This record gives sequence, C-alpha cells and structure tokens, in this order.
Amino acid sequence: MSEINQVKDYLQALQNRIVVALEELDGKQTFRRDTWERPGGGGGISCVLTGGAVFEQAGVGFSHVYGEQMPPSATQSRPELAGRSFQALGVSLVIHPLNPYVPTTHANFRYFSAGEADDAAPAWWFGGGFDLTPYYPFHEDVIHWHTVARDACQPFGADLYPRYKAWCDKYFFLKHRNETRGVGGLFFDDVNAAGFEQSFAFLQSVGDSFLSAYRPIVKTRNKHRYGERQREFQQYRRGRYVEFNLIYDRGTLFGLQSGGRTESILMSLPPRVRWEYDWHPEKGSAEEKLYAGYLQPHDWLGSDSP
Amino acid sequence: MSEINQVKDYLQALQNRIVVALEELDGKQTFRRDTWERPGGGGGISCVLTGGAVFEQAGVGFSHVYGEQMPPSATQSRPELAGRSFQALGVSLVIHPLNPYVPTTHANFRYFSAGEADDAAPAWWFGGGFDLTPYYPFHEDVIHWHTVARDACQPFGADLYPRYKAWCDKYFFLKHRNETRGVGGLFFDDVNAAGFEQSFAFLQSVGDSFLSAYRPIVKTRNKHRYGERQREFQQYRRGRYVEFNLIYDRGTLFGLQSGGRTESILMSLPPRVRWEYDWHPEKGSAEEKLYAGYLQPHDWLGSDSP
Repeated sequence: MSEINQVKDYLQALQNRIVVALEELDGKQTFRRDTWERPGGGGGISCVLTGGAVFEQAGVGFSHVYGEQMPPSATQSRPELAGRSFQALGVSLVIHPLNPYVPTTHANFRYFSAGEADDAAPAWWFGGGFDLTPYYPFHEDVIHWHTVARDACQPFGADLYPRYKAWCDKYFFLKHRNETRGVGGLFFDDVNAAGFEQSFAFLQSVGDSFLSAYRPIVKTRNKHRYGERQREFQQYRRGRYVEFNLIYDRGTLFGLQSGGRTESILMSLPPRVRWEYDWHPEKGSAEEKLYAGYLQPHDWLGSDSP
Repeated sequence: MSEINQVKDYLQALQNRIVVALEELDGKQTFRRDTWERPGGGGGISCVLTGGAVFEQAGVGFSHVYGEQMPPSATQSRPELAGRSFQALGVSLVIHPLNPYVPTTHANFRYFSAGEADDAAPAWWFGGGFDLTPYYPFHEDVIHWHTVARDACQPFGADLYPRYKAWCDKYFFLKHRNETRGVGGLFFDDVNAAGFEQSFAFLQSVGDSFLSAYRPIVKTRNKHRYGERQREFQQYRRGRYVEFNLIYDRGTLFGLQSGGRTESILMSLPPRVRWEYDWHPEKGSAEEKLYAGYLQPHDWLGSDSP
C-alpha cells in the first residue's frame, strides 16, 4: 500500500473513532456528514454536530486535497517548493462545548507531500498536535492534558515533548493580545527525519492519545453547574479564538487560499461569540484566574507550574 | 498652519460632530472617551458607545500615529517607501445598531505622509470612504446612500464617484464567500493628484456628507419592529463582518502591526455574533432578499439597479 494510502486509512479511521466517541459523550445529538469535492482536485468529509447536550458545536473534518501548484501559505517558509505539485491529507477538529467549565479543544493531524521537480526529489512531512483552551481552568486538568501529550511523545525521544510543547505555546499566541490561546499541548511540523515508518508511528501515537487527553476532562467538568455569567465569559473568550483563527492560523489561511470548502474550514469558529470594548476581569474573580495563571507559557510538568 | 495640523483639526472636529450626532440619535447612552498613547509615537482618542437604545455598539476613533519605520502593511503596494518615517492621521468608525433593520456602517477618513529619504521627496495622500452593510435591505435606502456619495464627489469630477464606488465594491469583497460585505459606497486611496488644497477639500466633502447619508436611514429603519428571528439573522451576518475585518482589512492589519491600541482597533467587531455551519436562507424569505439582490456589485444609480 502506498504511503499516501496508509496515511489516508489511518486518518479516516481516526476521524470515525473521534466522531463515535463524541456522539457517545454528547448523548443527544449525532454528527451530520457532508462529503465535498474540491474543483482543483480532491475533497473531504466534514462531520459536524450542533446543538448537543454537551457540545454546542463540534466539527471533525477529513480532507485530502491535491493540485499542480502549491498555495502560497504552504511555501512561505519553504520557497524551494513553490510551483511544485502537492498532496495534503489531514484530520482537523475543533470542539466548542456548551458548558463553560468544559474547555474548547483543537487537534490536527496531517501529511504533506510535494511532487518531484526538475532538480529535486519529492518532499514529505507530518504535522499536527492538539491544544486546550479552558475558560475556567483547573490545574489538574492541565497537568493531565500535558501528561498525556508527553506520554504520547516519550517512545520517540525525550526531547520531543519539550520541543513540541514550546512550539505549541509559540504558535498559538495572540501577539496583539500578548496572550496564549489557551494552555497549549503539542504542535509539530516538518516531521520526517526518522524516516516514514517512525514518523508515521509518531503521528499515530499522538492521534491515538487525543481522546485519552480530552474525554476525562469533558466528563468531569460537564458536571459543573453554570449560569449566564459563565456563558457570557465563555462567549467573550471565544472572541479570542476567532481572532486567532482568522488572523494567524496557517491552516485556515491555507484552506481558504487553496480553494478548500469555506464552510468546512470555518466550522472551527464558535457558534456564539461576544466582543466587549476594553473589558477586564474583576480582581480576585474566577474569570481573573484564567488571566493570572493560564495565558502565558508555563512548564506545566516542571518547576514552573503555577 | 502646517498641512498635518490642518488635517488634524478637521478630523478631530469631524469625530466630535459624529459623536454628538450619534448621541442625539441614540437618546439613551453617551460615548465613553479614552485617550491612548502609542509607545512608538502618537496616540488617539477612542469614543465608544455601548448598550444604547439605537446603537448596540458604536466606535468612533481618531488617531495620529508616527514613527521612524513604516509598517509592512503600509508599503506592500509601495515598496519604494519601505524604511521611511511616516505620519498617519485618521478617523475611523463602525456602528452596530441594535435593530436588525438598521444597517451597520463603516467610515474612514485618513491622511498619510512619508518622510523624505536620501533620493526622494516626501510623499503624502488622502484615503477613506464609507460603506453600508444592511441585513434587511431597502432599495430606496441604498439609492439614497449612493446618491449622497455621488453628490459628495461631483464637484471634484464626474469620474470620481464611479471609480471610487467600484473600488469600494472590490475592496469590501469576501473572496472565500463570493460576497460583497454590503452595498458599498465609496473607497479611495492615494488621493493627491490635484494637489493638497483640492485633495483635502475632497476628503472634507466626503467626510461632511457621512451624516447626511446615514442619519435618515437610522431614523426610518429604527421604527421597524423586530423579533428573535431578525436578531439571529443579524448576528449571523455580523460573522461576515468579523471575517472581513480580520482576514482582509488593511486598516485593521496596519493598526495591529504598527502597535496601535488593540481595543481601539478591534472596537470595529460586533458585540454579539453567530456562526452556523452551512446555513442558507429559505427560498422566498426576507433573509434571502439580501442574498439575491445585495451581495454582488450593482450600478445602483444606473441601469443595473435591481
């Protein structure tokens, strides 16, 4: 089986596993499944659940797109690949829970391959990761999240977790707010140094660990009772999510530039959002806890854990 | 009086006039005024009204920023100015009414000047315009809006309105949605060919006409009764406003890149917003009217008026 097909089989099965697990967690709504084709080549399957008991909106997308010319967002840091053909495979998900005590999460697992050119061999790499965005953070949840992340990396080298954890903090950072998007997790790209087999095994290790990282947090925090105040804060903070995705996120820009399906790309955006001019949390409030301890990078599993 | 000071006096007075007029229209809330300084040089005055009887949020900002190095968003189309010092003066406003029958509007009036370099004289130009974003559009409002726009341009040449109207349609276009942001109006930039006096007079003509364009529409449409359905549609369509401002708008990117005050720049974002996966208006509904006739460029004052 070709490398592309191996990756495709894994990613499609992963999408299915996550969809089934989220439906089970929600208990009320099921996912709608839309298949779509990209005029330039390829297509995808978008699974979206809305109005659930647990999830206000959850989108889990699979896509496999290809074309003769790489879009500019893909070659910004690799100008030598400009103009080459490409294949991009990925699973991407964003989950917006209803209960403000349950964090939002995002995960992405992808494989990219550029066709050979006159004077160059084919190039390929894996990328991805997962990150967590709490509104009312719990320290033990963050420790659990990062422990699962570290354990998924561990078999592939002790240096991977610190490296990809730091990359995640750096990537999911809103410069104009001087805030991280959340408490991070893993972010990696250009993974190919260990060869295809090992690199693919690493991707699978991280992909397989996502549900172990997120499910227990959902189960515990969804029991918290909340009211309008918590919903208002959640919707306000979701504004930051929108700002990040539309201003900074390379995946979003790549999707829109490469002629991906707009509704599938923007299903990452939260269902209800607020902006409020010059809002600041009250000193000592539950909302301030997020600002005080969770919006800057920390070494959660080390000595810097707040 | 220096040219910078003449423009500054006009823009500050314009900001005040608009603020006073909006307070009068609202009748309930007044503007909060925040002055701010930019670490790199300059600052501004942000006037924001929230929770009004007519305006859910209205932001009217004045800023005068300067520095030793132009930010990249300002020199993208003028690479010859890269590295030169600059002064940027502007009034920028976005008004989000509460009643979904009252359109959102945006206006901007600005002056930009680049310091001289070794081998080049100083460069300066005016830019700006205003545009209208209805949710439930009324044909006669759009005709009124464009008539005021045309009349403001008329004394400066019959070619200006068609040119700046077309530029507006092109600028406020969401490629990933294949939709205009609204029904347009005027957009101009690089205005300097007629010399400072005439160019400044043109800017003033457009600036002075803004209230004549917007006020009557607010007065008439605010009388319409609305319910949850209209509010939901308004909030959904506001999502497009967010998408435009964060993905495409040069003013927003210039502001964030040049170290402007984030809260002042993002006061353009609507207070409450919704996204809904793959939503489409029902055939024959009031919501479909917007999609059918108002989200592509039209020659409103000519034969193409739908």
